[in-house]
Amino acid sequence: MTEHPHANQSRSPGAESTAHSDFDARATSLSDVDPSIFEELLSIRQTIDNIDAALVHMLAERFRATQRVGYLKAQHDLPPGDAGREAAQIQRLRGLAEAAHLDPEFAEKILNFIISEVIRHHERIAEDHRTEAPENGA
Amino acid sequence: MTEHPHANQSRSPGAESTAHSDFDARATSLSDVDPSIFEELLSIRQTIDNIDAALVHMLAERFRATQRVGYLKAQHDLPPGDAGREAAQIQRLRGLAEAAHLDPEFAEKILNFIISEVIRHHERIAEDHRTEAPENGA
Repeated sequence: MTEHPHANQSRSPGAESTAHSDFDARATSLSDVDPSIFEELLSIRQTIDNIDAALVHMLAERFRATQRVGYLKAQHDLPPGDAGREAAQIQRLRGLAEAAHLDPEFAEKILNFIISEVIRHHERIAEDHRTEAPENGA
Repeated sequence: MTEHPHANQSRSPGAESTAHSDFDARATSLSDVDPSIFEELLSIRQTIDNIDAALVHMLAERFRATQRVGYLKAQHDLPPGDAGREAAQIQRLRGLAEAAHLDPEFAEKILNFIISEVIRHHERIAEDHRTEAPENGA
């Protein structure tokens, strides 16, 4: 513990870090909460924080994959969206959500949100590709 | 392989399943795509499908945790939202996103979307709790 030069540096007593140096896992606007209730809340929040870090990293990896799709599509003049693929994805994720007891409506909304962001990226990649390789079309 | 009674049952040749029985991993609205380009696209899409299954399961687990928070808050008459906590979460996730080369704006938008859904759930749990335990207040 004492070997690490930044351990608990400039951090309020009792504050726990979860991967981001300035993060205060005890941050709250709640007041007048019984200390034992607050500790129970913090314990569940630790699980949520761990899951959120996993989600961010999975999303980052997903965007690396869709970026490769974007370049492939731009190189071969394929359209940014693919309605048939998206319908199959949404249907599958609704099924997976149901099996995992996650609201399928919510899963579909999240996927649509991600897909629309991905299509925006694909369009930008295609735009950049046209600018960089004007010999492919006017 | 042959022991499994449902293996490849009523599935078109070449269609691959990814955890959901009716899912066609080759579904597309693209036409006139060079077969080798399409296979390259399908290979990246397999990665995306694997990540999406992981995301759905992480989100399902996250909602199990926030549901526990919802019950705890309802039991102790705590408000559904916690602005100080949310600000700390968003700041942390922006930092994690940046480190993973994911657009921090996008990470923040996704988290806000999830948090607003969670608060909606908390409100519903609190509402149900008031209905079930009217002795706690009028």
